[in-house]
Amino acid sequence: MDSERYQRGWEILKELDTGVSEQLANLSEIAPEFAKYVVEFPFGDICSRPELDLKTREVVAVAALAALGYATPQLKFHIGAALNAGCSRQEVVEILMQTVIYAGFPAALNGLYAAKEVFRERDAAGS
Amino acid sequence: MDSERYQRGWEILKELDTGVSEQLANLSEIAPEFAKYVVEFPFGDICSRPELDLKTREVVAVAALAALGYATPQLKFHIGAALNAGCSRQEVVEILMQTVIYAGFPAALNGLYAAKEVFRERDAAGS
Amino acid sequence: MDSERYQRGWEILKELDTGVSEQLANLSEIAPEFAKYVVEFPFGDICSRPELDLKTREVVAVAALAALGYATPQLKFHIGAALNAGCSRQEVVEILMQTVIYAGFPAALNGLYAAKEVFRERDAAGS
Amino acid sequence: MDSERYQRGWEILKELDTGVSEQLANLSEIAPEFAKYVVEFPFGDICSRPELDLKTREVVAVAALAALGYATPQLKFHIGAALNAGCSRQEVVEILMQTVIYAGFPAALNGLYAAKEVFRERDAAGS
Amino acid sequence: MDSERYQRGWEILKELDTGVSEQLANLSEIAPEFAKYVVEFPFGDICSRPELDLKTREVVAVAALAALGYATPQLKFHIGAALNAGCSRQEVVEILMQTVIYAGFPAALNGLYAAKEVFRERDAAGS
Amino acid sequence: MDSERYQRGWEILKELDTGVSEQLANLSEIAPEFAKYVVEFPFGDICSRPELDLKTREVVAVAALAALGYATPQLKFHIGAALNAGCSRQEVVEILMQTVIYAGFPAALNGLYAAKEVFRERDAAGS
Repeated sequence: MDSERYQRGWEILKELDTGVSEQLANLSEIAPEFAKYVVEFPFGDICSRPELDLKTREVVAVAALAALGYATPQLKFHIGAALNAGCSRQEVVEILMQTVIYAGFPAALNGLYAAKEVFRERDAAGS
Repeated sequence: MDSERYQRGWEILKELDTGVSEQLANLSEIAPEFAKYVVEFPFGDICSRPELDLKTREVVAVAALAALGYATPQLKFHIGAALNAGCSRQEVVEILMQTVIYAGFPAALNGLYAAKEVFRERDAAGS
Repeated sequence: MDSERYQRGWEILKELDTGVSEQLANLSEIAPEFAKYVVEFPFGDICSRPELDLKTREVVAVAALAALGYATPQLKFHIGAALNAGCSRQEVVEILMQTVIYAGFPAALNGLYAAKEVFRERDAAGS
Repeated sequence: MDSERYQRGWEILKELDTGVSEQLANLSEIAPEFAKYVVEFPFGDICSRPELDLKTREVVAVAALAALGYATPQLKFHIGAALNAGCSRQEVVEILMQTVIYAGFPAALNGLYAAKEVFRERDAAGS
Repeated sequence: MDSERYQRGWEILKELDTGVSEQLANLSEIAPEFAKYVVEFPFGDICSRPELDLKTREVVAVAALAALGYATPQLKFHIGAALNAGCSRQEVVEILMQTVIYAGFPAALNGLYAAKEVFRERDAAGS
Repeated sequence: MDSERYQRGWEILKELDTGVSEQLANLSEIAPEFAKYVVEFPFGDICSRPELDLKTREVVAVAALAALGYATPQLKFHIGAALNAGCSRQEVVEILMQTVIYAGFPAALNGLYAAKEVFRERDAAGS
């Protein structure tokens, strides 16, 4: 029986339409509780809070993940989520370009190449 | 004679009303050209681009700087700039809370304590 | 009314005897829900899991926080918690020394100086 | 003729049974002295110190490497070493889950996927 | 029409003989202005300054990029540029070995393996 | 009785004239063996290798430490060491300015402010 927090997180994930089910299943094979936490804490507790709309939440996600430099799989996930939450491709590119200021060219370039892959995958899928 | 890029950057900095002049003068004592680059590249080249409005630019800045964990002086500067660009204090707090997802509790806590200091300084200054 | 997760987290914090109440009150002034999450998620969800004992949890905390290099306040908190969970001072020093392998001399040295401060504070407090 | 430090380090590496010989040979092609330092300093100087047992040393290694986020090859090595030093798979998963607190979801997820690969490789090898 | 800064940056890139054209074309597909900034700011503004010669500039690049740990594509680019600017392979290996002090073994090892790939590619190309 | 590696490292430290004795004594109070390792491994093993001269070693140190963003005490130490090894103040400033490319403005600015402090301290000491 899922917690209220889980259900709230799951609603956000459905709205972001990120195809996360497969990834959670993959994670559940090794750490089923952690797959639950992924839904409950970041999405159920944090991103469901009404103080920021979902598009702004994804701006935050893309900016923070790009600045880290090493979080490419999670950045690709949130580039897709940002597009689904109403960011245009140009806006995503602009966010990534801006991270050069705070984290330097390698982080920004890795982010832009990640965006290029996401855009290409969506073009190939016709989405 | 200032370059067009410098003037464009300076306009952004005036709009953000960050009292940056003193900091640039401080920097100029050791690296005058770098003080010029600070205006020209991040503000003149990047943040003046019209694809994102200034409030969104500051959301990106706060999120990226908080995720780095070690950029407290720059984060405090951009928390102030975010408030001046139209973010409410609650929105700034929400952005910082959200960075816990990507960068963990120390980075988010350091960011929230930095915000507390900025809010207190502005309260003390009556701004 | 506190959640079960909060109460579970609070039990852990009491066992670690870290004097966290003041810090949570401080945090609550700016982000009361985040102060709640700090108890619920890291302590209520994660550290209360029985798969690792509390002493091992604190070995993990000290090692991870020292490796980040910038998380000094949180590292000092967990050096104290490690001592309260049964680590000797020498064991804490050994953990910090070992992080030189993974994160280099600055991170390890910052960690060792943080430990020195914690030890001195406890000596001064007679604890 | 190997130094005493090298021999002490080599004993630790044998005990961890990590199949490091091939990696050291690979490294020696470009930086033979560095391959020597890898044995002498982390293993001969640090991890051979008796203040922590080898299992605890590997808890420290897994926690610190996962927190860095970018050290996947070294993390996989030490996940294997942790298992050989007496950690159960569940304990390794718990350590990695706990790093979410200090370094965020991307670092913890990258760590868990690395563990999944190591477990799969060992299953395939029947070890 | 290219800016003076662009032309100055391009001269540096030609002197470093890094075959950057293909990479810039690749980047231009998603972010054409960013491809322009890559030439103008790091190379036109910074690396063209006469206070350090080009070989020293590449020592700085290799050391800083290796210390970050996650910037492998950019590190490979600058290992090649360092060789073209007059560093010997042994000097590049020494710089990378030295980064172990500041950033630990994973960063240094990742750097050394990146160098090995660059050397092998150049051997294969007969350059 | 000091090892040969210790003596070799100590020679380098004397040549760099960094007043390290006080810092090592401070460290020895909590971790005497680590104070020994600090001399033996970074200075005795690595920086004493003849493949790079001491001035280039300090260029590497300043670049790598500035890129990390959080290593201010160690960066200040090596800014002083770089000056003693023959770098001019302008060269140190140039190295720090260049790190903006790889690690962004916060890391470069933190580095430049650290240099300003070191220069001021030396001016005050008349050195």
